[in-house]
Amino acid sequence: MSENTTTTTTAPTENLRERALKLDAADPLAGRRALFALDDGVYLDGNSLGALPVHVPALVQDVLTRQWGELRIRSWDESGWWTAPERIGDRIAPLVGAAAGQIVVGDSTSVNVFKAVVAAVRIAGEGRDEILVDATTFPTDGYIASAAARLTGHRIVPVAPADVLAALGPRTAAVLLNHVDYRSGRLHDLPGLTAAVHAAGAVAVWDLCHSAGALPVGLDEHGVDLAVGCTYKYLNGGPGSPAYLYVAERHQAVFDSPLPGWNSHADPFGMTAGYAPADGSVRGRVGTPDIVSMLTLEAALDVWDGVSVDAVRAKSLALTDFFLECVEAYVPAGRVVSVTPAAHAERGSQVALRCAEAEPVMRRLIERGVVGDLRRPDVLRFGFTPLYVGFADAERAARILADVLAEVPAGNTVG
Amino acid sequence: MSENTTTTTTAPTENLRERALKLDAADPLAGRRALFALDDGVYLDGNSLGALPVHVPALVQDVLTRQWGELRIRSWDESGWWTAPERIGDRIAPLVGAAAGQIVVGDSTSVNVFKAVVAAVRIAGEGRDEILVDATTFPTDGYIASAAARLTGHRIVPVAPADVLAALGPRTAAVLLNHVDYRSGRLHDLPGLTAAVHAAGAVAVWDLCHSAGALPVGLDEHGVDLAVGCTYKYLNGGPGSPAYLYVAERHQAVFDSPLPGWNSHADPFGMTAGYAPADGSVRGRVGTPDIVSMLTLEAALDVWDGVSVDAVRAKSLALTDFFLECVEAYVPAGRVVSVTPAAHAERGSQVALRCAEAEPVMRRLIERGVVGDLRRPDVLRFGFTPLYVGFADAERAARILADVLAEVPAGNTVG
Repeated sequence: MSENTTTTTTAPTENLRERALKLDAADPLAGRRALFALDDGVYLDGNSLGALPVHVPALVQDVLTRQWGELRIRSWDESGWWTAPERIGDRIAPLVGAAAGQIVVGDSTSVNVFKAVVAAVRIAGEGRDEILVDATTFPTDGYIASAAARLTGHRIVPVAPADVLAALGPRTAAVLLNHVDYRSGRLHDLPGLTAAVHAAGAVAVWDLCHSAGALPVGLDEHGVDLAVGCTYKYLNGGPGSPAYLYVAERHQAVFDSPLPGWNSHADPFGMTAGYAPADGSVRGRVGTPDIVSMLTLEAALDVWDGVSVDAVRAKSLALTDFFLECVEAYVPAGRVVSVTPAAHAERGSQVALRCAEAEPVMRRLIERGVVGDLRRPDVLRFGFTPLYVGFADAERAARILADVLAEVPAGNTVG
Repeated sequence: MSENTTTTTTAPTENLRERALKLDAADPLAGRRALFALDDGVYLDGNSLGALPVHVPALVQDVLTRQWGELRIRSWDESGWWTAPERIGDRIAPLVGAAAGQIVVGDSTSVNVFKAVVAAVRIAGEGRDEILVDATTFPTDGYIASAAARLTGHRIVPVAPADVLAALGPRTAAVLLNHVDYRSGRLHDLPGLTAAVHAAGAVAVWDLCHSAGALPVGLDEHGVDLAVGCTYKYLNGGPGSPAYLYVAERHQAVFDSPLPGWNSHADPFGMTAGYAPADGSVRGRVGTPDIVSMLTLEAALDVWDGVSVDAVRAKSLALTDFFLECVEAYVPAGRVVSVTPAAHAERGSQVALRCAEAEPVMRRLIERGVVGDLRRPDVLRFGFTPLYVGFADAERAARILADVLAEVPAGNTVG
């Protein structure tokens, strides 16, 4: 990086501040912000951990003190604990474009990736020995897919999403892709890639961690086979809240889980020695559901009542556009470079800025209340959660970023 | 079952009631009961779901409102979220006779059985193709072991614990056993069976769901290789609270997880494409830990501060002895038969009574506040949690059982 000047930018600041206020005033989702516990900073890390919906603690108190404390074991029936995994799955379903009965909540994303990848190669059948995995994806997907491939006798083919089409062939059993790249924020072409995977006779598995709750996914519409996702980012389910598994209805009868725990049995309380899988999404369950976390998530999903995912997407794009505009206006040229695509069709709900001084810059941003995160070595990551981030937040974050960059000289990567 | 008379038993009732009061007065653990949310009934289902420790909801409120709500993403460091799985594992360790650094908390018991069984056959190495599984055990262990065997190319050999010695041989890779049978309450000989498994050159995996928190396990002392357990029974961690995995220190460097999620990576935030396992118990982690449930469990473990597991065991045996004595005194001969061993060395912390009319009897018991559970078709199961069940509870439960049996005629299996 070159030596740099720190120019001041008073005139655009006033214009952008005014525009931000107007945009916030016209924002149909602006009222949702009051549903969340936020302080006077700017929280742009909802793509790592969504903020707390303020009504959640009272509902969790009821789970603890009445459901567990008073009803105890009876709550498995009377408080609906037993059916929580599929009931909460059905609440997530409309957010990712799935009809009811196809999503089950439980376990971590990694464990669900394992279920999905093994089930996918079993659906693909004999004679196909390759699993294509997005080489740019969040690494756990690759680690788990490799572990699955080792157990099923398949070969992992790491591939960038842009190269999937060339890599598909008669040997391809399954393809594991991330809908939005966790680092760059790039949105991949789920409809087109799914169709290409199908044209090759393979099974498409999508990881929705960075897209669910931020943009329309259209699982059913685009014929996705299997999908997984976490619930603690844009779905605000709480730290490490249970993940979910989508199994398209047409595959449910042949979904052959590598983790057939007793909760996925057709008659779990029969406690028979032989395994017989349940029908429907229940087949994706494994062990006893983690009720406290699961009902925390269920409560958190209330913030989505009456929200259109299309409205969320529209605001997300407007927010990230506006933030990029503010960065362009405020930040001296050359200090940061956006690695998030400019094209709307290729953008998730975050902005990733490459910055040679990313580490000290993010530290100082956080000290000033602008909370994003660092993806080593040199990416400043800012997530925009449309339910609680506004345009004035975006303007302020860009302005403080410019201030911080003025304090951290170019080339100072440890200061 | 024969037709039956309902005799009244006034004299022994007075004696047993008096004895119960004396036993409670002399019980060194009696003070622990006040730590739990209990009503005026008799809760004998702590072997299914442990009761709520009364201090837990306030601590969970802090997790939700301050740690998540205010600190948000900073809590991964500042509130100790990231290290919770191994920290809480170290708190469980003394309860099962393990030195620190060998237990990690997370996932369900079923998922941990999968990790343990696959890791066990990998430790056993090539040339051993059989996995022995307790055929009488809780069925999820068998389902999951079969799923693991299918993936690793092993053969499942179902075997009753009494027949393990005869079934062991040069083909045995691993043996999965339940320490206490969930139905009968029979305690198996962990030291002897583990030694026999080792003598055959195989790896011993123990499921501690029905023993941890009720009796000494001695994982290190007896050289157990791998173990799993739940935390929602005698450990009172909450409904579906996270399970745990024990990997003996000598195996940790070769523990080869089939679920190598990013949380088990040596440098998880390096987010490198290649997988490199962490050292120690961390290697047993998979995905992002389920913090709300995990910290609920951590809070619940406070009730163990200052408690000796030997004292728990002494009380457990005294309680189950006394309950059996009361049943013998109160219940007309022939109506129930204990399937729980009389010998202390073979008894866990529950009493299972075979009763032809088990279904209507348990329903009426619950209506009268004596909460046990039914294991179909004909087992009345009563769990005795020494931290909160007393001798007067045991006497009362047996007395009400006799009353209920007087109302439900022998042969009435649906009334």
